[in-house]
Amino acid sequence: MSRKIKAVQYGVGAMGRVMIEMMHDKGIEIVGGIGRPTSAIIGQDLGTLAGIGPLGVVVTGDAEKTLTETKPDIAVVCITTYLADLWPHVELCARLGVNVVTIAEECFYPWRTEPELSRRWDALCKQNHCSAYGIGYQDFYWGNQITQLAGTCHSITSVKGFAQFNVDDYGPEVARDHMVGLTADVFAVERKKKGNRPSYMQMVGDLIIDGLGLTFKSVTEDVYQTTASQEIFCKSLNVSLPKGIGTGNANRTHFETLEGIPVDIEMVSKVYEPGETDQNKWEIKGRPDVSVSNERPATDILTCTEVVSRIPDVISAPAGLLKAFEMPPIKYRRRFD
Amino acid sequence: MSRKIKAVQYGVGAMGRVMIEMMHDKGIEIVGGIGRPTSAIIGQDLGTLAGIGPLGVVVTGDAEKTLTETKPDIAVVCITTYLADLWPHVELCARLGVNVVTIAEECFYPWRTEPELSRRWDALCKQNHCSAYGIGYQDFYWGNQITQLAGTCHSITSVKGFAQFNVDDYGPEVARDHMVGLTADVFAVERKKKGNRPSYMQMVGDLIIDGLGLTFKSVTEDVYQTTASQEIFCKSLNVSLPKGIGTGNANRTHFETLEGIPVDIEMVSKVYEPGETDQNKWEIKGRPDVSVSNERPATDILTCTEVVSRIPDVISAPAGLLKAFEMPPIKYRRRFD
Repeated sequence: MSRKIKAVQYGVGAMGRVMIEMMHDKGIEIVGGIGRPTSAIIGQDLGTLAGIGPLGVVVTGDAEKTLTETKPDIAVVCITTYLADLWPHVELCARLGVNVVTIAEECFYPWRTEPELSRRWDALCKQNHCSAYGIGYQDFYWGNQITQLAGTCHSITSVKGFAQFNVDDYGPEVARDHMVGLTADVFAVERKKKGNRPSYMQMVGDLIIDGLGLTFKSVTEDVYQTTASQEIFCKSLNVSLPKGIGTGNANRTHFETLEGIPVDIEMVSKVYEPGETDQNKWEIKGRPDVSVSNERPATDILTCTEVVSRIPDVISAPAGLLKAFEMPPIKYRRRFD
Repeated sequence: MSRKIKAVQYGVGAMGRVMIEMMHDKGIEIVGGIGRPTSAIIGQDLGTLAGIGPLGVVVTGDAEKTLTETKPDIAVVCITTYLADLWPHVELCARLGVNVVTIAEECFYPWRTEPELSRRWDALCKQNHCSAYGIGYQDFYWGNQITQLAGTCHSITSVKGFAQFNVDDYGPEVARDHMVGLTADVFAVERKKKGNRPSYMQMVGDLIIDGLGLTFKSVTEDVYQTTASQEIFCKSLNVSLPKGIGTGNANRTHFETLEGIPVDIEMVSKVYEPGETDQNKWEIKGRPDVSVSNERPATDILTCTEVVSRIPDVISAPAGLLKAFEMPPIKYRRRFD
């Protein structure tokens, strides 16, 4: 592009503020920020909120007005996880012809879990000549790294992934959401209350299955509690967790495909015991067997860096709702200008 | 494509025969095979040589006639390592407008080490509307996996790679070529005799530097001997290697870039001691630090599978000499037809 990329930060929470700082550092012009109309940050400078000094652009509560007036090349949407909750926001962007990147986890591959909204979103983007991409840590580490690893095989018979992260790194809300500190009985009750929204790993499995040219047949998900093998301290809740008490949970997601190639993904999210670290390990059985592992990935930072890194790709992508494996290889660019 | 891909196997040695078997299994039509005019395999059936039963196509010694008569979509060139030696063969293909994939290691990125031939090759391909791609295990494991890992970073300060393979897996020629079984004195003398052709890792470093948008400044290469810490057996040479004797060698390649970001690659190729395994580990320092590791990669098989996997991409690529990071993500396809 011959001029600076113009971006609106849509959702100015913790992640949104990191995005602002990184986008600014890459040479993107921040032309607007959108918060909840009732939020205390309405009217505050986006640069000040992001810790980089005033940018002369303030948070507004009126999304449609901000997007219409600033005409950004892209809106970086950091609001919520599931597409149904996010719909009014991304529908607005698509209606106005504004490209979107969003960290909403379901949007990494919403086609099976929200087929009707996905079709509407894709059609609206195409009608208004813009693109939308659900992205984060997933893009490379759970998506393109795995589909390309499979691309190095002559044939494959199974895919297996294991990821682990420390729920104690993300504040008290995340720790409580992962049911840290509960006994087994309370955990079982709370699990039931939460209902059956699909875990992030379902979208990861769906993306991999589609990217490998396989056909989804069924999925089962099993959630179990992780417990402390010794007394450990949970810093985000500021409590000690005695031996035997819940430290979080783990999801085991099992996919069957019509081709008979199973995809199994396990994600452990818990307060770590001494010596435990973030992990991301994948194994594909086939000809030949292949594997990849990323040691101690900085999962949260990598969500921000991958979103920012993908902005030029989303702007130049064909119109529609994008899938990770259809994107060009993610590319290092020190700056975009 | 609406019809089968047609391929000529150019060079029907050990690797070429595996290519034939894999291409046939993917639904590629093998329309010709080219050997040295003096070779004993001239006139033999390609399928029989590849162990899959007769295909009704025999090895010829006349490359130009075979390529002209069979009009393949691609020639799979498995002859030698360095572009200068390979030139007559790839020049012929480019002149005839035949797409090429070659496992010649220098062709992964020949632009710095053979700039004049690279420019001529690229121009000839463009003139005749065909593509050429130097490829193998490098494509994903030393190329796209690393450039994309960097693409997940906001900024980077250094790149470091370590690869190790067992020279005892590739027969006596490779073991001797890696100077297995020599004393330190003889190793030093033999090293001098070999001269200074760049190691494979130079092309890997060049590709990464270009793919990251950096600028090559200088490269130094340091070769040292690896020695047995205990008596071990070398099966390819059928000898015992006493403690202290050479088991192979290691290359340390150090690149400087104008941007001040160093790239360091170490490759160990030796007869393994008990417990040692193939390795591929890369670390990029930056924001954040990232890393990737492939456990026990089947380096030799993966060269064949990646070449075959890339055939449709090379056929549909723009004309010219291709770079790995400009290719689409390598994709798993059970068959091509």
